[in-house]
Amino acid sequence: MILPLFFISCLLLSSSSSSHAAVQDFCVGDLTAPQGPAGYSCKNPSTVTVNDFVYSALGVAGNTSNLIKAAVTPAFAAQFPGVNGLGISSARIDLAPGGVVPFHTHPGGSEILIVLQGTISAGFVSSANTVYFKTLKVADIMVFPQGLLHFQVNAGNTVARAYVSFSSSSPGLQLLDYALFGNNLPTELIAATTFLDFAQIKKLKAVLGGTG
Amino acid sequence: MILPLFFISCLLLSSSSSSHAAVQDFCVGDLTAPQGPAGYSCKNPSTVTVNDFVYSALGVAGNTSNLIKAAVTPAFAAQFPGVNGLGISSARIDLAPGGVVPFHTHPGGSEILIVLQGTISAGFVSSANTVYFKTLKVADIMVFPQGLLHFQVNAGNTVARAYVSFSSSSPGLQLLDYALFGNNLPTELIAATTFLDFAQIKKLKAVLGGTG
Amino acid sequence: MILPLFFISCLLLSSSSSSHAAVQDFCVGDLTAPQGPAGYSCKNPSTVTVNDFVYSALGVAGNTSNLIKAAVTPAFAAQFPGVNGLGISSARIDLAPGGVVPFHTHPGGSEILIVLQGTISAGFVSSANTVYFKTLKVADIMVFPQGLLHFQVNAGNTVARAYVSFSSSSPGLQLLDYALFGNNLPTELIAATTFLDFAQIKKLKAVLGGTG
Amino acid sequence: MILPLFFISCLLLSSSSSSHAAVQDFCVGDLTAPQGPAGYSCKNPSTVTVNDFVYSALGVAGNTSNLIKAAVTPAFAAQFPGVNGLGISSARIDLAPGGVVPFHTHPGGSEILIVLQGTISAGFVSSANTVYFKTLKVADIMVFPQGLLHFQVNAGNTVARAYVSFSSSSPGLQLLDYALFGNNLPTELIAATTFLDFAQIKKLKAVLGGTG
Amino acid sequence: MILPLFFISCLLLSSSSSSHAAVQDFCVGDLTAPQGPAGYSCKNPSTVTVNDFVYSALGVAGNTSNLIKAAVTPAFAAQFPGVNGLGISSARIDLAPGGVVPFHTHPGGSEILIVLQGTISAGFVSSANTVYFKTLKVADIMVFPQGLLHFQVNAGNTVARAYVSFSSSSPGLQLLDYALFGNNLPTELIAATTFLDFAQIKKLKAVLGGTG
Amino acid sequence: MILPLFFISCLLLSSSSSSHAAVQDFCVGDLTAPQGPAGYSCKNPSTVTVNDFVYSALGVAGNTSNLIKAAVTPAFAAQFPGVNGLGISSARIDLAPGGVVPFHTHPGGSEILIVLQGTISAGFVSSANTVYFKTLKVADIMVFPQGLLHFQVNAGNTVARAYVSFSSSSPGLQLLDYALFGNNLPTELIAATTFLDFAQIKKLKAVLGGTG
Repeated sequence: MILPLFFISCLLLSSSSSSHAAVQDFCVGDLTAPQGPAGYSCKNPSTVTVNDFVYSALGVAGNTSNLIKAAVTPAFAAQFPGVNGLGISSARIDLAPGGVVPFHTHPGGSEILIVLQGTISAGFVSSANTVYFKTLKVADIMVFPQGLLHFQVNAGNTVARAYVSFSSSSPGLQLLDYALFGNNLPTELIAATTFLDFAQIKKLKAVLGGTG
Repeated sequence: MILPLFFISCLLLSSSSSSHAAVQDFCVGDLTAPQGPAGYSCKNPSTVTVNDFVYSALGVAGNTSNLIKAAVTPAFAAQFPGVNGLGISSARIDLAPGGVVPFHTHPGGSEILIVLQGTISAGFVSSANTVYFKTLKVADIMVFPQGLLHFQVNAGNTVARAYVSFSSSSPGLQLLDYALFGNNLPTELIAATTFLDFAQIKKLKAVLGGTG
Repeated sequence: MILPLFFISCLLLSSSSSSHAAVQDFCVGDLTAPQGPAGYSCKNPSTVTVNDFVYSALGVAGNTSNLIKAAVTPAFAAQFPGVNGLGISSARIDLAPGGVVPFHTHPGGSEILIVLQGTISAGFVSSANTVYFKTLKVADIMVFPQGLLHFQVNAGNTVARAYVSFSSSSPGLQLLDYALFGNNLPTELIAATTFLDFAQIKKLKAVLGGTG
Repeated sequence: MILPLFFISCLLLSSSSSSHAAVQDFCVGDLTAPQGPAGYSCKNPSTVTVNDFVYSALGVAGNTSNLIKAAVTPAFAAQFPGVNGLGISSARIDLAPGGVVPFHTHPGGSEILIVLQGTISAGFVSSANTVYFKTLKVADIMVFPQGLLHFQVNAGNTVARAYVSFSSSSPGLQLLDYALFGNNLPTELIAATTFLDFAQIKKLKAVLGGTG
Repeated sequence: MILPLFFISCLLLSSSSSSHAAVQDFCVGDLTAPQGPAGYSCKNPSTVTVNDFVYSALGVAGNTSNLIKAAVTPAFAAQFPGVNGLGISSARIDLAPGGVVPFHTHPGGSEILIVLQGTISAGFVSSANTVYFKTLKVADIMVFPQGLLHFQVNAGNTVARAYVSFSSSSPGLQLLDYALFGNNLPTELIAATTFLDFAQIKKLKAVLGGTG
Repeated sequence: MILPLFFISCLLLSSSSSSHAAVQDFCVGDLTAPQGPAGYSCKNPSTVTVNDFVYSALGVAGNTSNLIKAAVTPAFAAQFPGVNGLGISSARIDLAPGGVVPFHTHPGGSEILIVLQGTISAGFVSSANTVYFKTLKVADIMVFPQGLLHFQVNAGNTVARAYVSFSSSSPGLQLLDYALFGNNLPTELIAATTFLDFAQIKKLKAVLGGTG
């Protein structure tokens, strides 16, 4: 015979029609609903399964047949809605020999990188303009504070691979070269705000698809 | 004759159709709309009355005719939508003689308990594995830090009653026994992850409705 | 010839139908959708333009032909949806000679004021009941901590103007006189909770439109 | 024989000299050390006992032999250091017949009140200038959003008592009358920023100890 | 010839004696100074080097020659001060064949696990008492929401290894068995608050070092 | 005769030796004490005066006789300790004809700019690589979301001036050119992580003082 444990259990179990209301343990993102400043709306908890909390796409190497010989595969809330609202997300980095993740920032979160294969030279620059730069071997971890410019470079002759985590479910990613040369910012304006030469700007616009 | 006080008042008063937009003092939860990571959507402010901010269900003793001779009556955002987004909520605890609120956690908030009637022995265990345990008399308050295992026990021969507050409008409640023995976790897995004996697990599953 | 820069770029560009999901840099408020505790729902990013991030209404002087010879023109999320969720907003203050922004609070944020024209005497009172009060000249800035009663007074014989910023996109504004005398709070209750005389209360209710 | 459970336990136990470093479950305030924006510095965890988490001063009625026939006994971090950093605190309110807690705000937190004895009329005013006001009986709870003006009045002929909780360990308390009339704010300035008459201001200054 | 770029640079460079004041990009923890609710005090920035942001101890397998055939090697702020205040930390999990990380919680943060070797069965239980449980293969990631009971079990016949990240620099770790059976909680009290049999409790106390 | 208003006042007033403990309205930064993740330690409240909350250095034009014909004068917590912990700060921007504030980010906060004199072309680039760019006239305000690359350019033939506010008391400032070319980052590494030509890098290093 099963006895009621105590009142709140009954209360929780009996109000099954609104039981989702009692639960704020997690908020699996509903990508089809509007976002708010804190993230996506929550999927109805009654439809949530363990598969919402598991993501397998990081098991596949990103395609590094490109200019930078590198690939970043994100598991942010937009790809992995189970992390929505939980203040954490992750990504996989693949670097072919010679591969580089160019200077970039994550406006919304700090990052920890762990090297899973090969050797990686990584660094960031502080607001005080100091460079913190080191070559990392397998299992080394390095932290990159929120919003600061940083980069990762394959430091060996073999494939390198890293796994990164972020202190936000949607940390964002702003790639410096894309921000400068991959859109319609006028060349004159880029020159004025970066001190780069016109020829240099036009050369990179040609590579990265920029206009103007 | 009534003079306009000053410009913003006029602005606020004249834009009555969108006046709700100007107000973010509170966000009474609309339990019928989707939640986000920060809580429920706000009820239209024009329909909010004082009754949204007052809750009377804690005036009724919970039913303690159960296994643990105890009852918890929550006033979380799901029951009392007026607290939605305000970072606070509360609950009532009733303990018959011999009553116990078994080991549990609130994943989303810290708690302060005040004894309103009788005597209550309460305690929590820290991450460092230290027990903080004391018998409380009427009007004593005790604080339980967020996420730590804690319990309350009627320490006297009469009915005891407490009122608790939380630092979240949806602090959650995870009852250890229910989490272990009140669902479909396989007995072998429980044994492996708790070191409890099979016989013990099966005995408690029988009491609490667990399967597998 | 344009080469793919690297994998994530492709990923971001190719998933254009759900590209809004990848973006949490900002959350321009959709004033027609429900709010949550963290602010307005986000406008669809694909419809966002630079005009969502620019606001020009602070270029027009507020109308100071009123009792207090002052005007406050807000640029909160409700007026300037581009700031929604960004933790910042602003406003313009116009003070005719003799103008006063009476005692008020912002329940949701701290404020920095900069004098743009004239001289302004400003002050706030702390929880410890201390007055922090000073006359400010053009370009002086002063900070008012969140939730504390404060005021601004034109300290000169000419028009004065200030620009204020807040640490919230919806800081709120509670004007003391309006809160006490501009609604239906019964005179007896006001007297009991403020120690003001009945005659004084009724006099101000007549000015500010209060009833009861 | 006792076997090591697993590695982290050993690690935690062996590093006893710095074991406090491993613990951030709580941060009992050290009132003798400097504060930071997030609260007091933490007392050395090795000196923390259960008595740091229990507070008994709310068991004693406050002295209501005063002008307002009321007393508020706080259990904020400054009185009850165990709540430091936990986002919660509480207080006791005693109201003799005719007692009043006059208009006040808590700049740093929202509040829930529960009536423990007698009947209490309580209310708050929103930024939109609406009054939310109700008479509460024993066990009714009412929530007051952060930073808004509110009050409590004994609504019966007997002693009334309430217990309040806050969503901050240091919510602050700004009493309107004290802020206006209990310090050295010049009468002319009070008049200009409140529209109160000089005679009224001087009368209340005399009662509350204000100068100027 | 080097020209000054612009004023703020000069300002930052010239005020080198207090240049640390200008920098809040990071706050490398000073483990010898007192903590506050937000974490450790910051090490003097002028003494910070890249080695403060890199941690290599996760490259060494934990010792799994113990009862549970498992080891957790943390890289929290207490071990890796570079993450202090950045809202992120990590750890390594080693599981020999048959190894188990028993039921535990992290009171201060959510967790993402990635399997680096072998297969791992992992699960958590929600406040609503639902089990979310799955066997993960290499490169699968799974998220565990803050404060909820969860576990990891080696699901294969070989060594398994995982890397976990947390949404806090000090997430805490409360091991259920240690909390119940590894301290001086009286057996009677454990029985009353868990419904376990006395014999079971005493048996586990003997294994885990509990007294009373 | 002055009567005690009510109990808490007495309590607050009588405990004057520790009265600072009761006050968490503000936390004026003590620049000589260690920082924590939430900001500076608080100056002893008994030594705080109104001058801690007022800052006049923004009244002086920055020196624009430099390469970029621009100056930024910050009023962050490091310069204006009164804002410490209040989530807000500000700065003044001076732009001579032809003046430019080059591409930069604020890792710790969002920004609102108001044009006070002249015309300014300002823009930012989102994570999705979109440019939001507009020419602003006097009194226009524009918001720049946290962490995103942005710039300001004098769009007229006369001096231009702006005042900016931030959603943090220490928002940080990372100037792209300084981060890339004003330190000891090796030229090869810059080339690899930015795709800029060696000659371009060396040219800018020569201007900005970079080595390596």
